[in-house]
Amino acid sequence: MNFSSKLLEDAVNEFGKLPGIGQKTALRLVLHLLGKEQAEVAQFGNTLIKLKNEIKNCRVCHNISDYDICNICSAPKREKEVICVVEDARDVMAIENTNQYFGVYHVLGGLISPMDGIGPSDLTIEDLVERVKTSEVKEIILALSANMEGDTTLFYLHKKLKDFNIPITTIARGIAFGGELEYADEVTLGRSIATRVPYENTLIK
Amino acid sequence: MNFSSKLLEDAVNEFGKLPGIGQKTALRLVLHLLGKEQAEVAQFGNTLIKLKNEIKNCRVCHNISDYDICNICSAPKREKEVICVVEDARDVMAIENTNQYFGVYHVLGGLISPMDGIGPSDLTIEDLVERVKTSEVKEIILALSANMEGDTTLFYLHKKLKDFNIPITTIARGIAFGGELEYADEVTLGRSIATRVPYENTLIK
Repeated sequence: MNFSSKLLEDAVNEFGKLPGIGQKTALRLVLHLLGKEQAEVAQFGNTLIKLKNEIKNCRVCHNISDYDICNICSAPKREKEVICVVEDARDVMAIENTNQYFGVYHVLGGLISPMDGIGPSDLTIEDLVERVKTSEVKEIILALSANMEGDTTLFYLHKKLKDFNIPITTIARGIAFGGELEYADEVTLGRSIATRVPYENTLIK
Repeated sequence: MNFSSKLLEDAVNEFGKLPGIGQKTALRLVLHLLGKEQAEVAQFGNTLIKLKNEIKNCRVCHNISDYDICNICSAPKREKEVICVVEDARDVMAIENTNQYFGVYHVLGGLISPMDGIGPSDLTIEDLVERVKTSEVKEIILALSANMEGDTTLFYLHKKLKDFNIPITTIARGIAFGGELEYADEVTLGRSIATRVPYENTLIK
């Protein structure tokens, strides 16, 4: 692209580094910001700098937090004996949005992926084992993505945790609510038949 | 969305204000930035702040520029007698990318749009008239979008400029190169037949 301004080019290049943002979109975003008041743009920039400078990871669950211990871990109402293991902070938010879970979390910070050079030691797995060892845990829910990395991590976690004799569960897989059978992929449909459940179990009590 | 962190929420809200960026995309972008080094995020924020603080509009053509007079207006090789009138800086870049234009520009800063409350006085039209009056201009090319606002602006500009007895042209409309006739809209196809040109004229000399 032919920029008439170095300042503009720099800003477009910064936006263009973000995932899913190409040069044309970056230019549109920068021109939008240029149309804003100076104070608004300063707030945009400073909010990001402040975020990176001040954000912490919860010492217990490694979730993104403003404090040393996150809101969820420090909430007296949450069941500390149930730990839901997730990949990242986005998954915590997704589960929190369901309003169906009242335990606490453990954020792995990724999934085991030899292809990307991510091994167990790059994740917070040792911390999880330590946490299970030192606190009273009644159930560990493994809520990981259903892909190769997720399955590998699931397998590794199960191996590491099975000797504690604590129930280890995974989230239910199957046809989505509102999903039409004919559009479901064969693997999901096949597995959802093989792992069928008694009708009474599907009623929310 | 349920944020575990106020800092995170603020950053997501700032990104969410940008056009075409919803909350989920904003969260993805913020989490991406969180994964970067502190220096990189600081650079991102500071580049935007610097852009807004230091950027100028060219005194002659109103294009975005680092200096009082933009690169194009100050280039000795550009034909100052040919002025291409465009809506905004993005159009200047698009035309520059073609490498087919060697004149200078005039950036209106928008199009006349009574629906959005944008009248002629909100644009740089008076400056354009002044520029045509005080400098030697041989041709004015009106390169505006082919929509209602573009047509309104075209009509207004023509009325303002016709008394100077300078050739006023508009960019050619028609079927795009590589475009299939059957997929062209009726208006474009109809107009491209009505305004057909001698074959010899279409050969680039």
